[in-house]
Amino acid sequence: MAKTNKDARPKARLPKGLRDIEAAELRAQNAMLDKIRGVYERYGFEPLETPAFEYTDALGKFLPDRDRPNEGVFSLQDEDEQWLSLRYDLTAPLARYVAQNFQTLTKPFRRYAVGRVWRNEKPGPGRFREFMQFDADTVGTDSVAADAEMCILAADTMEALGFERGEYVIKVSNRNVLDGTLEVIGVTDRRQQLAVLRAMDKLDRLGIEGVRELLGPGRRDESGDFTRGAGLTSEQVTIVLHQLEAAYDEKTTFDNKVQENLSSSRLRNEGLSELVEMRRIYTSAGYDDGQILINFGVVRGLEYYTGPVFEADITLDVKDEKGRPVRFGSVGGGGRYDDLVARFTGQKVPATGFSLGVSRLQAALTALGRTGSAAVGPVIVTVMEKEHIADYQKLVQTLRSSGIRAELYLGNPKKFGKQLEYADKRGSPCVVIQGSDEREKGEVTLKDLIEGAKAAAAIKDNKEWKETRPAQVSVKESDLVSEVRKILARHKS
Amino acid sequence: MAKTNKDARPKARLPKGLRDIEAAELRAQNAMLDKIRGVYERYGFEPLETPAFEYTDALGKFLPDRDRPNEGVFSLQDEDEQWLSLRYDLTAPLARYVAQNFQTLTKPFRRYAVGRVWRNEKPGPGRFREFMQFDADTVGTDSVAADAEMCILAADTMEALGFERGEYVIKVSNRNVLDGTLEVIGVTDRRQQLAVLRAMDKLDRLGIEGVRELLGPGRRDESGDFTRGAGLTSEQVTIVLHQLEAAYDEKTTFDNKVQENLSSSRLRNEGLSELVEMRRIYTSAGYDDGQILINFGVVRGLEYYTGPVFEADITLDVKDEKGRPVRFGSVGGGGRYDDLVARFTGQKVPATGFSLGVSRLQAALTALGRTGSAAVGPVIVTVMEKEHIADYQKLVQTLRSSGIRAELYLGNPKKFGKQLEYADKRGSPCVVIQGSDEREKGEVTLKDLIEGAKAAAAIKDNKEWKETRPAQVSVKESDLVSEVRKILARHKS
Repeated sequence: MAKTNKDARPKARLPKGLRDIEAAELRAQNAMLDKIRGVYERYGFEPLETPAFEYTDALGKFLPDRDRPNEGVFSLQDEDEQWLSLRYDLTAPLARYVAQNFQTLTKPFRRYAVGRVWRNEKPGPGRFREFMQFDADTVGTDSVAADAEMCILAADTMEALGFERGEYVIKVSNRNVLDGTLEVIGVTDRRQQLAVLRAMDKLDRLGIEGVRELLGPGRRDESGDFTRGAGLTSEQVTIVLHQLEAAYDEKTTFDNKVQENLSSSRLRNEGLSELVEMRRIYTSAGYDDGQILINFGVVRGLEYYTGPVFEADITLDVKDEKGRPVRFGSVGGGGRYDDLVARFTGQKVPATGFSLGVSRLQAALTALGRTGSAAVGPVIVTVMEKEHIADYQKLVQTLRSSGIRAELYLGNPKKFGKQLEYADKRGSPCVVIQGSDEREKGEVTLKDLIEGAKAAAAIKDNKEWKETRPAQVSVKESDLVSEVRKILARHKS
Repeated sequence: MAKTNKDARPKARLPKGLRDIEAAELRAQNAMLDKIRGVYERYGFEPLETPAFEYTDALGKFLPDRDRPNEGVFSLQDEDEQWLSLRYDLTAPLARYVAQNFQTLTKPFRRYAVGRVWRNEKPGPGRFREFMQFDADTVGTDSVAADAEMCILAADTMEALGFERGEYVIKVSNRNVLDGTLEVIGVTDRRQQLAVLRAMDKLDRLGIEGVRELLGPGRRDESGDFTRGAGLTSEQVTIVLHQLEAAYDEKTTFDNKVQENLSSSRLRNEGLSELVEMRRIYTSAGYDDGQILINFGVVRGLEYYTGPVFEADITLDVKDEKGRPVRFGSVGGGGRYDDLVARFTGQKVPATGFSLGVSRLQAALTALGRTGSAAVGPVIVTVMEKEHIADYQKLVQTLRSSGIRAELYLGNPKKFGKQLEYADKRGSPCVVIQGSDEREKGEVTLKDLIEGAKAAAAIKDNKEWKETRPAQVSVKESDLVSEVRKILARHKS
């Protein structure tokens, strides 16, 4: 529907799947970002910011048989009619950056990035078309130590954000183990392979028995809906499940179990020994299986990863406002991807990375009531006499110069009750009042709003205010800052 | 040129007018944003984040006679074929937000916003298609105190960023004075009006005589190029210049000068008395004409503003790398705009705001060498024996747990010189080394890189390293943290 009537006023509305983020949420988000940044910096990663959009071909988002970009991305054309697309993650722009600057980069190249990404997908509850990611990647090393480091980085980040041990887990698997398993059971049809991987991916949600059904003929859920299975034989199913169950082994026997599981598949053995080495590294660095756990149910992106894959899960059970249990599941993930830069240069560049879904994490922290305390509202200097507005502004500036959050009431000052109502809505700790009597005596009146909030509603005008004056104290103008500080200190405790 | 050959590898390149921002610049930018945020918060503004794109009609970016968006914005279509555009500033989305949430907003509504904006304009040196703005706006008050506050906010922000008094100025004018002047000299033709305003806008760059020429027949610059003037009569020119010269008056006579200048134009008199009132407020709050200066050469956006307008200028003379003088000029600006929300609702909502060009400010701070000190690079734990990588990772983790930025060398560890070279490029303060001898004794070797940097280049392999060992100290493994801290402390001073 193109816009046709130029004279009609536009409707003030947001495009589908987008949203505004208001003060309280934004403050909590910034606090989160600072904590994540702190961990990534401590790990030696360096920040990088790439543009919001790139050439569509550089993002790898042309459909195989078309001249138009993939529908999953938002795309536009520049003046030369070349296609541009908004970035849908932070890894594709990193690959472009690395390919473009390969000669001059210090390698291994460790970079972190935080920013919004956009996906042209169907929005839903909690699913937006614009959201924020926070990534760390190490490019130019094939050392499994780099993958192990991503897992401990993820664990440290979850703990820095306030999750305690047992409330989260970093789950680790390896694409070579998965592909090797397909080799072992002799599944070569691409569609059947994907069905097997999708079934394995459901381990945490459906348990071993659910996965058994999905690997075989299929599964009917509680609502009666039937999902067709991968159609494996019972022998094939046994092999796959045996592997999945390794995740539930006692820690001490893990290495032995792996030995037992070695098989005719070179791929699978390679993947397993990488996992053993990763576990040796993060265990030696002080992380246990309560924090980082090998779990073959982790599949992640099907086309993308080439080695170890990992996922950060919140394991804590939470209830929503209506008391229903909420499972947050995965709030981040990543893995080794050795082919992304080769798309440009033809040369394989080994890389591994971890990406946190900031918006998802924040939703979890909010539901857990762990977003920290709200910001203190500003002290409001009220206006009793409009002609003295310059004097009131001076009081405001005195407070600000001392680092106190303060503002002048800028609405219509006629109704004093409105000024108090405004201060109340802003969460002000106190208001400053100066009428002509006070000005003559060189005084100001401070009203503690948190104690006096109830009385305020009843006051109608400046006259009534002067007569009643609830919950307040008169101080010398020269003591303004110290007296306001006393009130602020009272509210902090 | 559409992409035609799907098999060809894409070229790794950035779209025109876009750029990557690397670590040092990004860190400096974040430090700047924190300082600006600190001031805006202290002034009682609340953060708000709106999406990167909006419906094109909501941004007011349809051309008057077309169904396609203005070429000045980047636009795309959603699945319903409605036009969307990337935001080109932070004010148009604010107007949409206010119109959409008008009933529930606490008014006056004070919000700040920081974010990237995009303009589909011709890029040039220092002119990018994506850049960052930091805005503060007060919506829902027609009080001139709100405009005065924007000016002191701007002054405080410049000082928080490290500009001293005399190095910047906030210039203030009023659109009603400008429009009133056009009324007084009887210029009613829109094109001639714009020519007059454009000439006045050049005051700081060309001086009074340059403006005199541009108001009259025209001006030939040093290169010989001729710019056609506004074609005013000499009487008209005298009136306009008389007004511009008010900016150069002695402070004490300012109010009197204004009185003298009152004329038959009601508009102009209104504008002048608003300026007098603003000046009374910011003077009373402790700001002098060295910080905030009335200057009728400030014009700003021609269609947009409805009252006071202001501009933040850097007045400091700076030289570029080649010793040529650089004029930064305006790094921010704003003013009163009373019509933006009315576009949606039909109802006039008075508003005023100030917008800082973050990228421009940063370029200025960089040229002035005031971007602060560089970040400390990570301590690098080197790898002498690959099979002990878990032990090295443990050393790294010990440092990190104590808050020290540290990383394991993840490249090929064969050539030790390469590891030192890497540490050097990363700006590491020191490297940690542990060979088998040291491990047996429970020791590590610390090498101070800043002192030992020169010696490193000469070392070829692990063997030579063991024989020479320049600029280093052996410490007990249990003293690792405290000994590294000593080196870090040494480099700070």
